[in-house]
Amino acid sequence: MSDFVYRRRVQFAETDLAGIVHFSVIFRYMEEAEHALWRAAGLSIAERDSDIGWPRISAACEFRNPLRFEEEFEVRTRIGALKTRTIEYEFTLVRERTVIAVGTITSVCVKKGQAGMRATEVPAEVVRRLRPYTAEENS
Amino acid sequence: MSDFVYRRRVQFAETDLAGIVHFSVIFRYMEEAEHALWRAAGLSIAERDSDIGWPRISAACEFRNPLRFEEEFEVRTRIGALKTRTIEYEFTLVRERTVIAVGTITSVCVKKGQAGMRATEVPAEVVRRLRPYTAEENS
Amino acid sequence: MSDFVYRRRVQFAETDLAGIVHFSVIFRYMEEAEHALWRAAGLSIAERDSDIGWPRISAACEFRNPLRFEEEFEVRTRIGALKTRTIEYEFTLVRERTVIAVGTITSVCVKKGQAGMRATEVPAEVVRRLRPYTAEENS
Amino acid sequence: MSDFVYRRRVQFAETDLAGIVHFSVIFRYMEEAEHALWRAAGLSIAERDSDIGWPRISAACEFRNPLRFEEEFEVRTRIGALKTRTIEYEFTLVRERTVIAVGTITSVCVKKGQAGMRATEVPAEVVRRLRPYTAEENS
Repeated sequence: MSDFVYRRRVQFAETDLAGIVHFSVIFRYMEEAEHALWRAAGLSIAERDSDIGWPRISAACEFRNPLRFEEEFEVRTRIGALKTRTIEYEFTLVRERTVIAVGTITSVCVKKGQAGMRATEVPAEVVRRLRPYTAEENS
Repeated sequence: MSDFVYRRRVQFAETDLAGIVHFSVIFRYMEEAEHALWRAAGLSIAERDSDIGWPRISAACEFRNPLRFEEEFEVRTRIGALKTRTIEYEFTLVRERTVIAVGTITSVCVKKGQAGMRATEVPAEVVRRLRPYTAEENS
Repeated sequence: MSDFVYRRRVQFAETDLAGIVHFSVIFRYMEEAEHALWRAAGLSIAERDSDIGWPRISAACEFRNPLRFEEEFEVRTRIGALKTRTIEYEFTLVRERTVIAVGTITSVCVKKGQAGMRATEVPAEVVRRLRPYTAEENS
Repeated sequence: MSDFVYRRRVQFAETDLAGIVHFSVIFRYMEEAEHALWRAAGLSIAERDSDIGWPRISAACEFRNPLRFEEEFEVRTRIGALKTRTIEYEFTLVRERTVIAVGTITSVCVKKGQAGMRATEVPAEVVRRLRPYTAEENS
């Protein structure tokens, strides 16, 4: 199976005075692709009234080429590691044949309670549905 | 009493490819001033675990002059109308002697429940604390 | 001819702690629809290296119902007035049969130079291409 | 010399439906601190009409604890490496005694021309002014 592909066009408010997409927005594109992958898997990252959440514990990105207003690009997404309590995503943003950025985001599964958030195991149903998007399944 | 004044500097990510602050960000500046006014009044617009909320029912702005990266400006704020269920704010953004924008935002007090949000009366304590910032008190 | 329709899904980063789309983002949705309309008309609001720009001179919106994460909606767009130097857009955001928001944005055509921006006439080619999206043409 | 400290309060629009600051906004806080450091050094990251720019080539962050609406925090900033063509910044976000996030951003100095951006040497004046904020000078 190939990577999950999320397609997008750059919007005006996502650019800055340098005339290119602001680097913080690249992380938002990666997040949008992640959530689209969840929908494709029959899931939602934020079920209404759920006490489960998915805060990020790390994010990193290399920015290779700028992206400009109205350009179309795709975010190729796969799950690099599906662990007991965390999920690591790998992203490559591509415009035509130009690599724009390569990044990773790692999220931890938490249970929300009165006392805040506490790490917990990724639900079995989530593991089952995300498995097809993992790197191993892709090879 | 004069208007409540909130001071701010333009940040890089708030500009767009035209080299000026994006118009949607001007509304965020007005909101920041509103929340600073609440803090000055000894209140918070979003108390943790409160079932009261303040969604906007309308917002409008005239943009008179552009605002650019690193410029400092102030948001002069007053409460135009403090009604039974709604609060109307009036804002003037000024950079030195140049008027940048003039706007209004109206919020409604709601009680959040299982079935969504329902308009309710502005709590007496909020009325008491915001009264000094109303236009009548300013005159 | 009917309104121009732009379809969109709410993204996670567009929500705030109240669990709904932040009101400033509604203005971004309207702008996205405007730019999509321009593309449909064979135009770009921001041609590279053009000295013409389209800053907003006013924007207003009534927020009727909240919009939440992952909800799909459409922005129905028409040009209310195509004047010598300004263009006024009218937007209605709808989720299924629920009206989310009704708004307007007015932009002025400017020529950018050393001394800043100066209002100028809307180019004839722009008028010709946008005419089909005006309210008169819609009736 | 100690780290450069930039102080900030969380704004409402920076939170998401999970009730905490969106992770992409943490990168914006780091950028704001970087630009404040430049101002403290008598520089601007974006001089009007300059043909020099500072796009990011990488950014990374570990998110240790959530940040919530109206919380005050500081961004402790230093320059980890001041190289021929790149500058690497190191950031630690702290709320009272709690570490919120630890991150790095690397920018490259570019000259902007007709054909796009091309890496160039960091101007001597910039090196001279930023030197006091480098890690070596801090030890």
